[in-house]
Amino acid sequence: MSSAGHDSPATDRLWSVEEHLEDVLTTIRPLEPIELQLLDAQGCVLVEDVMVPLSLPPFDNSSMDGYAVRVADVAGASEEFPAVLDVLGDVAAGAADPLQVGPGQAARIMTGAPLPPGAETVVPVEWTDGGLGEGPVRGMPARSLAPQGATGQVRVYRPAPARAHVRDKGSDVRAGALALKAGTVLGPPQIALLAAIGRGRVTGRPRPRVVVLSTGSELVQPGEQLEGGQIYDSNSFALTAAARDAGAIAYRVGAVADDADTLRSTIEDQLVRADLMVTSGGVSVGAYDVVKEALSHVGDEDEPGGGVEFRKLAMQPGKPQGFGTVGPDHIPLLALPGNPVSSYVSFELFVRPAIRTLMGLQDVHRPTTRARLAADEPLTSPKGRRQFLRGTYADGEVRPVGGSGSHLIAALAQADALIVVPEDTESVASGAEVEVILLG
Amino acid sequence: MSSAGHDSPATDRLWSVEEHLEDVLTTIRPLEPIELQLLDAQGCVLVEDVMVPLSLPPFDNSSMDGYAVRVADVAGASEEFPAVLDVLGDVAAGAADPLQVGPGQAARIMTGAPLPPGAETVVPVEWTDGGLGEGPVRGMPARSLAPQGATGQVRVYRPAPARAHVRDKGSDVRAGALALKAGTVLGPPQIALLAAIGRGRVTGRPRPRVVVLSTGSELVQPGEQLEGGQIYDSNSFALTAAARDAGAIAYRVGAVADDADTLRSTIEDQLVRADLMVTSGGVSVGAYDVVKEALSHVGDEDEPGGGVEFRKLAMQPGKPQGFGTVGPDHIPLLALPGNPVSSYVSFELFVRPAIRTLMGLQDVHRPTTRARLAADEPLTSPKGRRQFLRGTYADGEVRPVGGSGSHLIAALAQADALIVVPEDTESVASGAEVEVILLG
Repeated sequence: MSSAGHDSPATDRLWSVEEHLEDVLTTIRPLEPIELQLLDAQGCVLVEDVMVPLSLPPFDNSSMDGYAVRVADVAGASEEFPAVLDVLGDVAAGAADPLQVGPGQAARIMTGAPLPPGAETVVPVEWTDGGLGEGPVRGMPARSLAPQGATGQVRVYRPAPARAHVRDKGSDVRAGALALKAGTVLGPPQIALLAAIGRGRVTGRPRPRVVVLSTGSELVQPGEQLEGGQIYDSNSFALTAAARDAGAIAYRVGAVADDADTLRSTIEDQLVRADLMVTSGGVSVGAYDVVKEALSHVGDEDEPGGGVEFRKLAMQPGKPQGFGTVGPDHIPLLALPGNPVSSYVSFELFVRPAIRTLMGLQDVHRPTTRARLAADEPLTSPKGRRQFLRGTYADGEVRPVGGSGSHLIAALAQADALIVVPEDTESVASGAEVEVILLG
Repeated sequence: MSSAGHDSPATDRLWSVEEHLEDVLTTIRPLEPIELQLLDAQGCVLVEDVMVPLSLPPFDNSSMDGYAVRVADVAGASEEFPAVLDVLGDVAAGAADPLQVGPGQAARIMTGAPLPPGAETVVPVEWTDGGLGEGPVRGMPARSLAPQGATGQVRVYRPAPARAHVRDKGSDVRAGALALKAGTVLGPPQIALLAAIGRGRVTGRPRPRVVVLSTGSELVQPGEQLEGGQIYDSNSFALTAAARDAGAIAYRVGAVADDADTLRSTIEDQLVRADLMVTSGGVSVGAYDVVKEALSHVGDEDEPGGGVEFRKLAMQPGKPQGFGTVGPDHIPLLALPGNPVSSYVSFELFVRPAIRTLMGLQDVHRPTTRARLAADEPLTSPKGRRQFLRGTYADGEVRPVGGSGSHLIAALAQADALIVVPEDTESVASGAEVEVILLG
């Protein structure tokens, strides 16, 4: 529930990073699965166990371009004493009713084409004269340019055992087997398998639609002219890009002035296309921090269960945070602080896991590692706050970039890691081991 | 140049993986840079050194919600003996012409608002009575709900040194400094910085448009009914997904029948939206391998410099490969083999680096590592061929999945790594160290 005006005592305590994250991740539920076109399902989580409806390959087929023959007809064949067989014609890939191969006969066969009835094995074209009568060949001439070889006689120079160069029906997967289990994340190889077994659609969780808006009467669109006291809106761009990077479809609404009614109506307008809303700014203790005020009653005021709670977190940057749900459908909303670095760090810690939870992914967090701190002077951190400093990581070593100021956006653009200084640590010497969140 | 019909002696030698890759990567040039809207530039490479046009912050501003005052007026202030100052009004973020603060005066100021002329420092609201006359407060009431505090008098309970809670103009970056250098890949933090310095557009290399088509008269669209001898088209789906994954905008044309004229006209039609074309199938030695034939003269036959060369590579899977350029604009084309595993492995080895080269990225290859082989039996590999087996990698250990057959698509969907067996190695025992390409 919101706390417009004075902070209520209940929300005035400091929340730990874990407490806030747990609140977010236990409130947010994976999106309901829908039927997705195969290529729209890329990066999404499958929610059905997909069974194989037909064996792969669906029929015995040749793994080579060559001639389909009977084993006895080529037994003992050599360059000196080739087997000479009558060529019935071609079996191309996709051929519906292949030829019947009898004794002394051969069918010219292409890779992937069904093994014709009567044939027991395949001799590659390189083991034959290609029907040209001029000794071993290296390949077949294109049929449109050189029709010869598909009729007449072929000389085979080597024997072949039964089912040589034949891919057996079902040798990849058999009908009834489990192709992919529910929970699989669909990358290109999984999409390949689904297509191969004939699935043009699958049931999966869609990408979440994330609406991003920044608040602040001082914000101007990049490319426009700045007047006195104004700055460019960077948060709505950074958060939109970060949401896409996390897997979402992101809509950048841009900057909204510090007016509670405008903000409220903007949010209400956007609810229809949001699975998650993210705001930046207006969450601190200022008289114009209208996000708190606006979010106390968005949508239907009689609807129970909604509301956004504002709280202080034991972290730096990112102390003021809001989280809750808005509108009759209880769309989750994360209200991030407005300083660019605070907003970005808050995204990484709370919004990214929220987006990936909506997607139904198991792995919602950035990877972390331990690294040796390489710093010119000890890092200092306020007691009781978990600090997230920007750094560059390479080969087990992390180096801070820029200071701790939450307005230092230039340094953020050089960083590829966050250095974590725990709540009970006030100073970290160079050479010490620290926890690092890898942003790359 | 193409080699329809018999392979010419020049192209009949075996190419190494490196030779083919080098041919691809020295032929393909990064796309010409264009002006990109900021959010369209996500993941793209910047080609300009971006300088900072204005200092950040552009003006001295408050890092807290509080009161802007003169240092002398709050020197010696305490809870017992507060400084009592006349409040002139509010300085909100975005305020165009702030108040002038004289001796004995204070202006209520919000985070990010410009430090008003005459003021020397900022006392946070928590160090004051918020103008309410009832002792220390925890924050400001929202202005719309409680206008008090912006006028009348404020009691300040603690002194503040000069420029406390003030972010100096230029303390983030100064006008004229280098914001981002040419070659930077634009992720969310870099987009944040560009927006913050007012850049709504940047000059960068666009995402390449990749047209994907598969060839084969046996191919049927997933979701349709299979007839005898037919299989589902999986390559065009897998390659489209993989191209997107590599950073491209991919267009899936789907399956084209084994007819040289149809294929040629399809390719000519698609050239207009292609920075790169990728085909699968029809590159081997069969009589219906029409890709070779079709690609010998696509577009203007009088135009010099084009043509696709077909060659055999010393690798398994993926022995037959084609590469060259097509059409009057010399659009690069990679012709991959048609077996699903061959096609996917070829994409990873050759097409992905090609796409990333078009993007102007430095880092075009998948990461590789060394791992201990954990296998039930030794891996065998044909002499003189570099083999790429599918495997799963975890914690320094790689385990093969499925066999070496290039039709084993079900096993591919379980793999997250390729195990590399060098040309001169015919057997690898479990426990041996192998090179691994990480697909994740």
